[in-house]
Amino acid sequence: MIKVAIMGYGTIGSGVCEVLESNREVLARAAGQELDIKYVLDLRDFPGSPVEKKIVHDFDVICRDPEVKIVVETMGGLEPAYSFVKACLEAGKHIATSNKALVAAHGTELLAIARKKQVNFLFEASVGGGIPIIRPLYRCLMGEKIKEITGILNGTTNYILTKMDKEGTSFDRALKEAQALGYAERNPEADVEGYDTCRKIAILTAMVTGKEVNYEEIPTEGITKITDVDFKYADAMGTSIKLVGSARMDGGKVHAWVAPLMIGKDHPLYAVSDVYNAILVKGNMVGTTMYYGSGAGKLPTASAVAADMVEAARHIDSNISIGWSSEKQAIAPADQAVYRFFVRVSGTYEDRRDMVEAAFGKCKVVELEGLDEFAFLTGPMKRSGFMENLEILKVELTAEYQKVLQVIRAE
Amino acid sequence: MIKVAIMGYGTIGSGVCEVLESNREVLARAAGQELDIKYVLDLRDFPGSPVEKKIVHDFDVICRDPEVKIVVETMGGLEPAYSFVKACLEAGKHIATSNKALVAAHGTELLAIARKKQVNFLFEASVGGGIPIIRPLYRCLMGEKIKEITGILNGTTNYILTKMDKEGTSFDRALKEAQALGYAERNPEADVEGYDTCRKIAILTAMVTGKEVNYEEIPTEGITKITDVDFKYADAMGTSIKLVGSARMDGGKVHAWVAPLMIGKDHPLYAVSDVYNAILVKGNMVGTTMYYGSGAGKLPTASAVAADMVEAARHIDSNISIGWSSEKQAIAPADQAVYRFFVRVSGTYEDRRDMVEAAFGKCKVVELEGLDEFAFLTGPMKRSGFMENLEILKVELTAEYQKVLQVIRAE
Repeated sequence: MIKVAIMGYGTIGSGVCEVLESNREVLARAAGQELDIKYVLDLRDFPGSPVEKKIVHDFDVICRDPEVKIVVETMGGLEPAYSFVKACLEAGKHIATSNKALVAAHGTELLAIARKKQVNFLFEASVGGGIPIIRPLYRCLMGEKIKEITGILNGTTNYILTKMDKEGTSFDRALKEAQALGYAERNPEADVEGYDTCRKIAILTAMVTGKEVNYEEIPTEGITKITDVDFKYADAMGTSIKLVGSARMDGGKVHAWVAPLMIGKDHPLYAVSDVYNAILVKGNMVGTTMYYGSGAGKLPTASAVAADMVEAARHIDSNISIGWSSEKQAIAPADQAVYRFFVRVSGTYEDRRDMVEAAFGKCKVVELEGLDEFAFLTGPMKRSGFMENLEILKVELTAEYQKVLQVIRAE
Repeated sequence: MIKVAIMGYGTIGSGVCEVLESNREVLARAAGQELDIKYVLDLRDFPGSPVEKKIVHDFDVICRDPEVKIVVETMGGLEPAYSFVKACLEAGKHIATSNKALVAAHGTELLAIARKKQVNFLFEASVGGGIPIIRPLYRCLMGEKIKEITGILNGTTNYILTKMDKEGTSFDRALKEAQALGYAERNPEADVEGYDTCRKIAILTAMVTGKEVNYEEIPTEGITKITDVDFKYADAMGTSIKLVGSARMDGGKVHAWVAPLMIGKDHPLYAVSDVYNAILVKGNMVGTTMYYGSGAGKLPTASAVAADMVEAARHIDSNISIGWSSEKQAIAPADQAVYRFFVRVSGTYEDRRDMVEAAFGKCKVVELEGLDEFAFLTGPMKRSGFMENLEILKVELTAEYQKVLQVIRAE
C-alpha cells in the first residue's frame, strides 16, 4: 500500500478523492498496490465529508512524513503551490499536479529536482484535462519528429465560440451564459484573453522540443474581438472559428502563438465543440494524430491526476525521463509563420477590387446580403508580408473613408 | 546499442527500416541507446536496397543469435509468423508486431510466454495503424473503468463509405476506386465483410477486460449491403454511416459486435473520413475520449512498431504488465444490446403508418422524393425486441406485397 497526500480539497482535489474511492480496485491493479490517502491539506475543515479525519492544515505534517510517497497538488496558483511542491520533491516525494500555471512557470526547475532526487514530477492533468496528451508525447510518439502541435486547449472559450457559431449569439451573451453555467469564471480574463491556452501550448511545446519555453514569449490573442458577424462569414465559407494554441517546429525554429483560427470542415479540430478539447499532433512519420476529450471538469481532470499517481507508483524508485532541460527554446518571430488571412472591409467589394487585388492578388471574396461590407481570404503568406500589404491597403481605404474591420488567421 | 531483427521486408517492414533510419537520433534518445538492424528476414533478396547485406533467409540465424534482443514481426498471416514469434519469445527476445491476425488468434499464449520469459510482446501497430491506442489503454486510462470502446478501425471501408456519402457513389464503384488507389486489395473480403475490424475490436476488448476474447464469437456484419440510397436517407437525417467495431462493458457482461452504424453530426466519429481511423473510449470518470489518425499506411504503422521497439528497449530486462490473461471473456448475446434502428420499407408511409406505429411506436419517419419507399428510425430498444417486432411487421407487409428493404443500427 502506498500512502499519498492531497494538497487542496477544491474541485479537482475532491475529484481525485472520488476517483481513488470509486476506482480503488482498478487503480490498485494498475499501480501494483493500493493508493491510500493519508492526508488532505486544506485551510478549511470539511466536517461530515469522507476526508474529515484526514484533513491537516500544516504542510509540514505531509512533508516530514516519510511514509507519504506521492503528493497530489491541486491547489492551483503559484504560491504556496510552488514552495510546497518543491519541498516535497526535495524530500523525495513524487508529485502529480493539475496546475498549469505552476508547470509553465516552474516546470524546468521542478523537473530538474525530480531527476536529481530520482522521483517524478508528473503533470498530465495540467493540459487537456482528462485527455491523455502528455503521456502520448513521451510514451507513444517517442520515435517521431513532431512538426506541429495545435490544440483547442480551453473549454470555456470553445463553449463560447460554439454558442456563437451554432446559435448566432454575440460574444457578450455567450460569455454570460457560460458564466451562468459555471463554465466561465466571474473574471474570465485568463480564458477569453488566451492566457490559459498560452500556458498550455508552452508546456506542450517544451515537451516536444525538450527545452524550456517561456510562455511570455508566445504571442497571445484572445477571442474578445470575435463577433457574430465573423461567424456569419465563417458559416458562408463552410468554416468555423476556434481559439487554438499552436507550435510549428521547423528545423531548430519554433513558431508558437495563441489566436483565433478559421478552420474548414475537413480539419480534424472543426468538429470539436462545446467544452471539449482536442490536440492535433503531426509527426514526420505518423502524419496527423489527434487526442480528444473533456478538457476540464472535476472527474476527467481528477482521472488524469490518478493516472499520474499510478505512473508514479510504478516508478517509485526511479525517475522517468520526461519533460525538458533547462536549455532555452527560442520562439521564432510570429511574423515568419505562413497562414492565410481572413479580412473584413467596410464598403462594397466592387469599388475596392483593384486595391485588394493589388495588395493580395486573387482572393476568395464573400459578400453577405444586408451588410455594408465584404470579406476576403488571402492565399498562404508570411505574416510579415501580410501585415505590410495590409498597411498599404489600410492607407488606401482611409482615403476612401473605408476601413479594415477584422483580421483572423485561417488554416 | 541494441541489435534488432526485422522479419518480413514488405510494406510495413521496409517502413520500419525507413523510420529507424530517418529518426535514428530521436529513437536513440527515447530508447536510451541506438537501435541497430542486424538482420532482415525475407524469402526474397533485395539487391541494391539499403538492407541488402542484412537479408537472411534462415529464421534460425535470428533466433540463435543472443545479440538480437528485439525482433519485429511484419510478415502478416498466421504461419510462419506464429512459430517464429513464439520461438523468439522462448529465446528471450522482445517482439513488436503489426500483425492483428496473430495477436487476435494467439495473443493469449504469446503474452503468457513473454511474462514467463520476462520479455515483452508488444502490438501497438496491430490496431489503428499509427494511432496510439494500445498504450493509452494500459498507460493512460489505467485508473478508469472502461464502459465502451467503439472504433472506425478499417481504412479501406471508411474510404468506401466516405466516397458513397460525399459523392453518392455506389458501393461497387467506390470499391473499384479504392482498389485502383491501392486502398483495397483485389480480394477485399477481409475488409468489406468486417473481418479485419472484428479482429481489432477483439484485441481492444481483451485489453480493456484483461481477459481473452475469441473474435469468432463477435457478431460481424460488413458493408456490402449498404447502398447509395441508404446514404440519401442518412444525408436527409443529418447522419452518416460508418463501419464500427464496438464493445460495451456492463458489469461483467460484454456486448461486442461489428456492423455499419448510423451516427449523427454530434458524434465524435462522424467527421472521421477517408482512410482515417479513430477510436472512442468511454471511461467511468474521464467520460468520452477519442484517438484519431492514420489507421494504416506504411510509415504511420511503422512508426507504431518503432515506438514499441523503444518501449521494449526501455524495459529490456523486465515484462511490462500489459495485455490479458488466459481467463475467457464471454461475449453477451448481441440481442441484449440497446440501439436505435433505421429501417427502410417499400411503398408509402401513409398506407403503413398503423403497422409501423403498432410495431415500434412513434418513430422519426423520412420520405424522399422520387422513391417508392419510406424509412423510419426507432427509439432505443433491445435488439431482441426489435427483431421480434420486425418479424411481425414483415409478415404484415408481405400480406400487402411490401417488404423491409434495409435495417441499419443507429446511435
